[in-house]
Amino acid sequence: MRNFNENTITDAVLERIANAADPRIKQVSEALVRHLHAFVREVRPTQKEWEQGIDFLTRTGQMCDDKRQEFILLSDTLGVSMLVDAINHPLPDGATETTVLGPFFVQAALEKQLGEDISGGMKGDPLIVTGTVATPDGRPIPGATIDVWHSNNDGYYDVQQLDDIGHLAMRARFLADDNGGFSFWSIKPAAYPVPHDGPVGQMLEAQGRHPWRPAHVHFMIAAPGYETLVTYVFEDGDKYLDSDVVFGVKDSLIREYKPREPGLAPDGWQMNVPYYYLNYDFGLKPAANSAT
Amino acid sequence: MRNFNENTITDAVLERIANAADPRIKQVSEALVRHLHAFVREVRPTQKEWEQGIDFLTRTGQMCDDKRQEFILLSDTLGVSMLVDAINHPLPDGATETTVLGPFFVQAALEKQLGEDISGGMKGDPLIVTGTVATPDGRPIPGATIDVWHSNNDGYYDVQQLDDIGHLAMRARFLADDNGGFSFWSIKPAAYPVPHDGPVGQMLEAQGRHPWRPAHVHFMIAAPGYETLVTYVFEDGDKYLDSDVVFGVKDSLIREYKPREPGLAPDGWQMNVPYYYLNYDFGLKPAANSAT
Repeated sequence: MRNFNENTITDAVLERIANAADPRIKQVSEALVRHLHAFVREVRPTQKEWEQGIDFLTRTGQMCDDKRQEFILLSDTLGVSMLVDAINHPLPDGATETTVLGPFFVQAALEKQLGEDISGGMKGDPLIVTGTVATPDGRPIPGATIDVWHSNNDGYYDVQQLDDIGHLAMRARFLADDNGGFSFWSIKPAAYPVPHDGPVGQMLEAQGRHPWRPAHVHFMIAAPGYETLVTYVFEDGDKYLDSDVVFGVKDSLIREYKPREPGLAPDGWQMNVPYYYLNYDFGLKPAANSAT
Repeated sequence: MRNFNENTITDAVLERIANAADPRIKQVSEALVRHLHAFVREVRPTQKEWEQGIDFLTRTGQMCDDKRQEFILLSDTLGVSMLVDAINHPLPDGATETTVLGPFFVQAALEKQLGEDISGGMKGDPLIVTGTVATPDGRPIPGATIDVWHSNNDGYYDVQQLDDIGHLAMRARFLADDNGGFSFWSIKPAAYPVPHDGPVGQMLEAQGRHPWRPAHVHFMIAAPGYETLVTYVFEDGDKYLDSDVVFGVKDSLIREYKPREPGLAPDGWQMNVPYYYLNYDFGLKPAANSAT
């Protein structure tokens, strides 16, 4: 095949891909070529614009290292990550809605005892978090693994300031008690901008967008027989709830971070200073191959 | 806006982009989001497939350096580069068809005298290349700048083996004579595979495709008042003409590389060994803002 023009080249590429051995690779490749060519035919890039596109993708890849994933950030800020999440997580009533993992999860978080303070010495307003883990119809799931992580009161995660603080903080793993319950102390997280000193930041600025996410606490909750739940709980009233740069907010994931005066806390601690109180009761979706 | 699902998130992202100050950036961003989301909705990637996509793009970016541009290779092998070329180069009758620049052009090629041997000591079958540069209606363009470059008989360019040969070779810049004519000696190029030890090579293999390009000599021809012509001349009979991995072949750009017995060459040289003879007469398209 030769002599391709604007209208014939797409079929030529599709014909070339027709020999792919793996049917899924063939399917994804064909769809990619059709949609990519349709995009190019619609916007009719000049040669210089094409070069700018190549340069943008190249810089995005070269911004990635073991602490930063600029292509995930691009996927997040173009709404693709939440679209993939929506496709993969249709939920039964009573199961907690999902969001994206984000770039700040760390596998190595230490297991802590229920009720412990995980702030790791970081300054901020004290926050007690309580809740339960249950089936969609409300039966407790004792022993569920609960990973939590969040930012400090300036919006930074521990891994973004490891050189300064020298250890992980504001993250831990807990096991739910016999009633599926959990509680822990930390500090209140703040809204924060996604990293915007790279190509994605340039894109956001050119698109007239801010880089902010509303304040939230991350949860990843796992138990045998259930789909692992990746989600967060946002702070009600945050000014970025309606313009989250990664499109991750769902009403069901918003809760008041309730201000409390000094006194007896929900877990029996005696607090001498004001603090905040957040509660969330999670529902896990049974795994597809489970009879639970 | 919150609570996006698979069907509502696209409009949410488009609404967010509506504030872009530059109308062209708005247009391209909107088209990108629509086509990208349509692709994702069609293929319905699993979370793991999404991760594989992120990883592929990241590795493609990180494969790029000052000698290698893996994203251009991806664009070339998906037919995007030739599509952009087709969009940007509608041609009048008599103007030579265009192709892509490719990764092996070097700005620093030395100017040589017409008739010189540019092989730079590389081994191979001698090849004389002759031709003319003219307007679409056949009027010569004296003094046109003619950049040429090509591979050796193993399919490698000088820049791919600089450590071994120590200097540029098989490339030069000429100025057309008073009749728009040119000629030079070199060695016959060979078909070659595009670099396929990276992500794009893995993609080609998964798609059941070979990485080969048919043998060709590159030309970039410029003259005041004309659009710069970027093209190549392929060897008739090459077995990859119908399956060029970058979709660059056009019938009008194929010529016989004619085998000749020892004797008097077209430029008057006396050849003691067999050689090949290639001729191509180029037509330049007048620039849009030119009265030529």
